[in-house]
Amino acid sequence: MTEQQSRPPSASRVEMTELVLPGDANTLGNAFGGRIMQWIDVAAGVVARRHCGGVAVTASMDTLQFVRPVQLGDIVVLRATVNRAWRSSMEIGVRVECEASGWAKPELAASAYLTFVAMDADRKPRPVPPVAPQTEGERRRFDEAQQRREHRISSRIPKPA
Amino acid sequence: MTEQQSRPPSASRVEMTELVLPGDANTLGNAFGGRIMQWIDVAAGVVARRHCGGVAVTASMDTLQFVRPVQLGDIVVLRATVNRAWRSSMEIGVRVECEASGWAKPELAASAYLTFVAMDADRKPRPVPPVAPQTEGERRRFDEAQQRREHRISSRIPKPA
Amino acid sequence: MTEQQSRPPSASRVEMTELVLPGDANTLGNAFGGRIMQWIDVAAGVVARRHCGGVAVTASMDTLQFVRPVQLGDIVVLRATVNRAWRSSMEIGVRVECEASGWAKPELAASAYLTFVAMDADRKPRPVPPVAPQTEGERRRFDEAQQRREHRISSRIPKPA
Amino acid sequence: MTEQQSRPPSASRVEMTELVLPGDANTLGNAFGGRIMQWIDVAAGVVARRHCGGVAVTASMDTLQFVRPVQLGDIVVLRATVNRAWRSSMEIGVRVECEASGWAKPELAASAYLTFVAMDADRKPRPVPPVAPQTEGERRRFDEAQQRREHRISSRIPKPA
Amino acid sequence: MTEQQSRPPSASRVEMTELVLPGDANTLGNAFGGRIMQWIDVAAGVVARRHCGGVAVTASMDTLQFVRPVQLGDIVVLRATVNRAWRSSMEIGVRVECEASGWAKPELAASAYLTFVAMDADRKPRPVPPVAPQTEGERRRFDEAQQRREHRISSRIPKPA
Amino acid sequence: MTEQQSRPPSASRVEMTELVLPGDANTLGNAFGGRIMQWIDVAAGVVARRHCGGVAVTASMDTLQFVRPVQLGDIVVLRATVNRAWRSSMEIGVRVECEASGWAKPELAASAYLTFVAMDADRKPRPVPPVAPQTEGERRRFDEAQQRREHRISSRIPKPA
Repeated sequence: MTEQQSRPPSASRVEMTELVLPGDANTLGNAFGGRIMQWIDVAAGVVARRHCGGVAVTASMDTLQFVRPVQLGDIVVLRATVNRAWRSSMEIGVRVECEASGWAKPELAASAYLTFVAMDADRKPRPVPPVAPQTEGERRRFDEAQQRREHRISSRIPKPA
Repeated sequence: MTEQQSRPPSASRVEMTELVLPGDANTLGNAFGGRIMQWIDVAAGVVARRHCGGVAVTASMDTLQFVRPVQLGDIVVLRATVNRAWRSSMEIGVRVECEASGWAKPELAASAYLTFVAMDADRKPRPVPPVAPQTEGERRRFDEAQQRREHRISSRIPKPA
Repeated sequence: MTEQQSRPPSASRVEMTELVLPGDANTLGNAFGGRIMQWIDVAAGVVARRHCGGVAVTASMDTLQFVRPVQLGDIVVLRATVNRAWRSSMEIGVRVECEASGWAKPELAASAYLTFVAMDADRKPRPVPPVAPQTEGERRRFDEAQQRREHRISSRIPKPA
Repeated sequence: MTEQQSRPPSASRVEMTELVLPGDANTLGNAFGGRIMQWIDVAAGVVARRHCGGVAVTASMDTLQFVRPVQLGDIVVLRATVNRAWRSSMEIGVRVECEASGWAKPELAASAYLTFVAMDADRKPRPVPPVAPQTEGERRRFDEAQQRREHRISSRIPKPA
Repeated sequence: MTEQQSRPPSASRVEMTELVLPGDANTLGNAFGGRIMQWIDVAAGVVARRHCGGVAVTASMDTLQFVRPVQLGDIVVLRATVNRAWRSSMEIGVRVECEASGWAKPELAASAYLTFVAMDADRKPRPVPPVAPQTEGERRRFDEAQQRREHRISSRIPKPA
Repeated sequence: MTEQQSRPPSASRVEMTELVLPGDANTLGNAFGGRIMQWIDVAAGVVARRHCGGVAVTASMDTLQFVRPVQLGDIVVLRATVNRAWRSSMEIGVRVECEASGWAKPELAASAYLTFVAMDADRKPRPVPPVAPQTEGERRRFDEAQQRREHRISSRIPKPA
């Protein structure tokens, strides 16, 4: 496979399951946001690594909003897919659900979009395969990713000269 | 839902994705077996928790064999399902695959069967729902689980009086 | 002190220093974004705890952008201050700098705004003290925080009914 | 010392003491099986490293059975010794005891047999010294290890071609 | 057993084995002193817990000196024993040895004396059993502990009023 | 900057903020001394790294005394500065304060002096810049450091021949 060959989102999607342990929660039993952020970054990072076939680093994360608090003892399921790729960067969407004890229905806890950049062995950006959306949902996310990218570029913090 | 209502394996199956980091590996870059064992136990524990709707603890793990070494930087994917349940115990099967960099095909790294026991708030065993296998594979694993249970009982270390 | 008494940002500001260890970095030696996110959440969480005098949980994090990659062995310094408070929520700004070996000048690596909500012992939102900005910079951030809050509310993911 | 020189089990035996902390236990205060498994692997791995004088990796773990649950706050003591060695592999036995508070007598919690393979710098198996049992117990375990090895070989999962 | 009954050091001695992993070391491969300190505190804490039969907290640690640097990949063995007890406090000595690869002889890396205080359920100091030294070495350490205690008391930081 | 150029303590001072989590505390909710020791070593290590511009390792820690117990949920603030440097070693002072919930005033929890040695790429000691004290407090600590050093040298454990 060359780097030019496009790849469908299904080839790199990730499902990740975690359990909220005492070390992940405050004294009231609410999970720390930072632990969820870390899991989001790992899930997205594995998608990026699978899509580009090598090392990739986090470049940004769009607004992360906790829709409901995650509790000690909850099961947390993260689902991540690549939405679109540009020259050396990829947008990855992550959806976080949590389940309380007692056959509770999983409920949306948070969601986020992250951008990763593929790196070569000298830590320089390197080209990544295009994303080939297959389903309607994948095509919609492919289109929306372009709009989010334009918004990200226009609101970017300038890099120090 | 009462504890008597049976549940299909698909209602509690788990997929878990992990990344082998430097702290998980020895100085040659081979992942520690103990880290993989810990991930196996968490994946199986989440299946047990989902099947019985509450807390469950590890009672045993059948022979764990590493078919191939897992390396630093590999992606590890664990898939776990409940095979059969008895009064308060459940057998859960876990399959571990790993993927190296560069679009490497996932390869079987290890597999194991674990037994979990459901606990009530006083840490006493409590009844669990029966497993209702739906597919041919699930029915085969349901039957084989009974044989493994008989082997486990016959080779059990006697509990101290 | 009653909850109605306002508090200046200097009473709750946080400086936090961390070292990027092998377990925080990928095989090329770049720090994982998720580890930085976790540190950002802890720094902001301590500010929130100090400002409201009790437990507070992460409600959201605005766009996080990595201006430069953080490397294994770098010193990371996080500085966090409360910008403004509303009934039970607070906006906290975090600035992340990193320093390489050899008396390298600290350089901006990332920055983010987070919202925390104060919780009472029943995990219900509870009132927090107003922020009393003292310096020009504090007053500017106090004003900008209101605009960011309006943007956050208008772009909020609807909570499930 | 050449690799051909045999070594007694006492030259590589390990005693390891751990404390069960909140992060090691579920919400009922029972230690996770996976944490005990990880400690078992480390204890056995140090024995293997001492017996072969270099790096060794986990190849398998025979049935692990928890004879009694380990609780939060318990002291856990692991004792590990090499039972027998073959060309490049070693069988290591681990016995796990736990002690509750209040001068409680240590009680057997679990035991397991693990196989480790010595690796050279190219991650290829390399020869290990034979085991020279000295005591009656060591000679019995030396003999039994051969039987367990034959059982392991006959029940081995075939490696993918 | 009442709290007045004396106990020999052998009833509470601890041996603890650890492996220096990449997350424990700096970029040159030297183990962090702080990780060794943490292991010393855990080893001593288990001795204290065993001697007093309950919870005990660290009150002080006398000069800790690293006699040789500990390296990534080294095996670290800690041996800890109670030297003497007073009303509610105990002095515990810890000796740290490390072994490099290749059948290297264990070498002294560090040693320290710690004081622990037994706590009741209200976190108040509670009486501990006296130490009954049995061997000549134990009697010498019992006597020296009294001198160290007098030195510690005379050089103590005054508690804030 | 050459290694001969002196540097003021303010150029390398460190402030570090941590939160005491369930995994850092015993079953009564008291923080483990070993976790505080580890934080002390990291804070001092960052000062050493900044003062000498490269890698430095812990050589010793003078008496560490806990003035008050640190509790689960406390905020811990560590402040560390270099007091004096000799050929390749540096003395660093660390002061630890903790804050309970509810706008509690920070209170001194512990303090310690550590010695670090700067290392070159071959793990040999290398020269460090002198310390140039600027304030009265810095000059006092500069003078006292020389006395502590003389005491340390006279009471040093002899290195094995």
